[in-house]
Amino acid sequence: MKAEIIAVGTELLLGEVLNTNAQYLSSQCALLGIDVYHHVTVGDNHRRLESALQQARDRVDLVLVTGGIGPTADDITREAVASAWGRNLVVDPELLDSIKTYFCNRGVEMTHNNESQAMIPEGAFPLENSRGTAPGFYLADDVSAVACLPGPPGELRTMFFDVLVPLLRSRGHLPVSRLYSRDVLTAGIGESTVANILADIIEEQRDPTIGTYSNAGTVRLRLTTRAEDPEEAEKKLVPILEVILDRIGEFVYGYDDDSLAGSLGRELIEKGLTLSSAESCTGGLIARMLTDTPGSSEYFQGGVVPYSNEAKESLISVPKQLMIDHGAVSEEVARAMARGASEALGSDVAVAVTGVAGPGGGTEDKPVGTVCFGFSGPWGTDSERHFFSGDRSGVRRRSAVFALVGLRRRLAGLP
Amino acid sequence: MKAEIIAVGTELLLGEVLNTNAQYLSSQCALLGIDVYHHVTVGDNHRRLESALQQARDRVDLVLVTGGIGPTADDITREAVASAWGRNLVVDPELLDSIKTYFCNRGVEMTHNNESQAMIPEGAFPLENSRGTAPGFYLADDVSAVACLPGPPGELRTMFFDVLVPLLRSRGHLPVSRLYSRDVLTAGIGESTVANILADIIEEQRDPTIGTYSNAGTVRLRLTTRAEDPEEAEKKLVPILEVILDRIGEFVYGYDDDSLAGSLGRELIEKGLTLSSAESCTGGLIARMLTDTPGSSEYFQGGVVPYSNEAKESLISVPKQLMIDHGAVSEEVARAMARGASEALGSDVAVAVTGVAGPGGGTEDKPVGTVCFGFSGPWGTDSERHFFSGDRSGVRRRSAVFALVGLRRRLAGLP
Repeated sequence: MKAEIIAVGTELLLGEVLNTNAQYLSSQCALLGIDVYHHVTVGDNHRRLESALQQARDRVDLVLVTGGIGPTADDITREAVASAWGRNLVVDPELLDSIKTYFCNRGVEMTHNNESQAMIPEGAFPLENSRGTAPGFYLADDVSAVACLPGPPGELRTMFFDVLVPLLRSRGHLPVSRLYSRDVLTAGIGESTVANILADIIEEQRDPTIGTYSNAGTVRLRLTTRAEDPEEAEKKLVPILEVILDRIGEFVYGYDDDSLAGSLGRELIEKGLTLSSAESCTGGLIARMLTDTPGSSEYFQGGVVPYSNEAKESLISVPKQLMIDHGAVSEEVARAMARGASEALGSDVAVAVTGVAGPGGGTEDKPVGTVCFGFSGPWGTDSERHFFSGDRSGVRRRSAVFALVGLRRRLAGLP
Repeated sequence: MKAEIIAVGTELLLGEVLNTNAQYLSSQCALLGIDVYHHVTVGDNHRRLESALQQARDRVDLVLVTGGIGPTADDITREAVASAWGRNLVVDPELLDSIKTYFCNRGVEMTHNNESQAMIPEGAFPLENSRGTAPGFYLADDVSAVACLPGPPGELRTMFFDVLVPLLRSRGHLPVSRLYSRDVLTAGIGESTVANILADIIEEQRDPTIGTYSNAGTVRLRLTTRAEDPEEAEKKLVPILEVILDRIGEFVYGYDDDSLAGSLGRELIEKGLTLSSAESCTGGLIARMLTDTPGSSEYFQGGVVPYSNEAKESLISVPKQLMIDHGAVSEEVARAMARGASEALGSDVAVAVTGVAGPGGGTEDKPVGTVCFGFSGPWGTDSERHFFSGDRSGVRRRSAVFALVGLRRRLAGLP
């Protein structure tokens, strides 16, 4: 089954809006086993939209249109689709009722413009919009089918997933097999090392396929297979998953949508340990990552961001002399910060970061990108010094991930 | 002048990569006065790419192609463009030299694949890639011109801005007038209030036009005009800018790429004041925003993230009884946190946040989204309680912006 995605909206052609809908629909189509051959974007122009629709109608089985189905004059998708499929626009009585109800429930008067939203091409099926007023519609004939979806991403996703996919499935218009994928999330190991260790299965493996994606010190391995149901997919994914875990299991912190901070949190809860943080150059990023996870108050006691040397002394008792002797960016100070945070916040485990994020502040000894980490916990207190390339925000992000990875390894008793 | 943007890459059609290049090129074209009528994406397929190129060649003056110019077999842009423009591919001797030099300088052996990158259609001009190995090229005939740019966004942007635009300009292929815009950044005022106060100029104003864009408690007003040079643009923008400043000047914190935290920093430096933060529900986000700005160590003493009640007591001396009497999320505790942070960190000014970011933890009195703010400084100590809708990360972001806006107004002596 072939599909084409047409986005409608002058704002896209002006670069004011990023076309995330095309990516979303493409990834969903890939999962459903539908091949997407073209993305096309046109402005709010009837002639150009109709011509794009005709071209798509001639070359694919399913045309997915996003945008242009709102109530205003520049919402031209309804008319253009009706022309391209040779249909008249008619009022759908049920749609009209539901739009009336929507406005009545809100005590808002319905305008004539909103009435136009009840018009769909003759023979089309309305698609319910549970998150907005603009209904979509689906129209199929012997040549091709077209589904018109709203432009706002939230409305589009809900309508696609909850309404259109079940409709296509019920009519037997979806391929029997679809793609299933499993993401294996690793940290503390570089993408090229992963690729080396898994070279044979990455290269020889055709089903499932394996892709690697790296981001700020983490590497995502995506296993993808085509199967008719989850059980068949599982059967194909598990053996290769086992090989991966066997070879790089110690670096795996989770699967699919897991976060590094969340996996660390689970580890802490399991071991009944509490955590605190002391961050200088990351400036609160580690605390933010830890508290992004709902329920993090169960193990995260709190953090300090002692940006000045005085604050390092007053908040977490880093001896002034230590900073004079070794500099604020040193393993000695990182260890003292970790110990100090652990004491000041009464936590079992603490992580500390001090470094030069740039763009200023670098020296020959400690160039921009030099970061020292302190770790304190049941294993004692130790430290690491590391160099990160990149700009200020890159150094900060990589440092925060490095700190969490270091904690995870120490908690797991790994070298 | 009309343009069309063609993106090449199967990864785009699979939804693995978001097509940010189309947005970037579109916004740049809009600024340059070039009208973009279509975006098209095709996979790494010679036939479909050539057919998309032919269609574009027939309908626009300038075709911008992104991607598919790397050294591997699935990089097909060179051949497809050569076919569509009816040219042979030839080795460009200068390009070959520069690629050889690139590899020689790095002590890496050059492969035959890399040699293919020196091939461009007969009559084309190479476009230097200062950030990668894949050169682009520009080819023009009587019908249409085509510029092939690399897929990686950093390489694409540099080549477009530094190489292609000057080339087009030197050949007189750019419109005489282009768009100029100025962003006025406001905070502490809602988008609808801004729209009301400026209704007359937003609606009646045709040149410059005014658009409003809101994000997490800030509103960006974009003034756009078409002019032949910066001086002419300035003449058209300044009068309307003055009207805006006259009406909502107290809410304006900066222009164009300024950040709220950066503008607050400038204010603090000007007044010779230092700052600290104490955040519970925002979990380090305020500290991170403040330290995103290089040089923030000049005024930011540091912050604390006292997530647990014990930490609020031990780090910044919030009396336990106060938390028992009023709850940790209360204006009383917010004020004590601000005072405590100011003392513990020895700063002139402090901001504190305590709230229920959700999804759990809400009560009837203090539902999810309830956030209390404490402000301490030369004006004394005061507090505010506010309710934010949205999910956990939305509540956190809005709270952090609200805190910075509140600080800014107090520093400026505004009500």
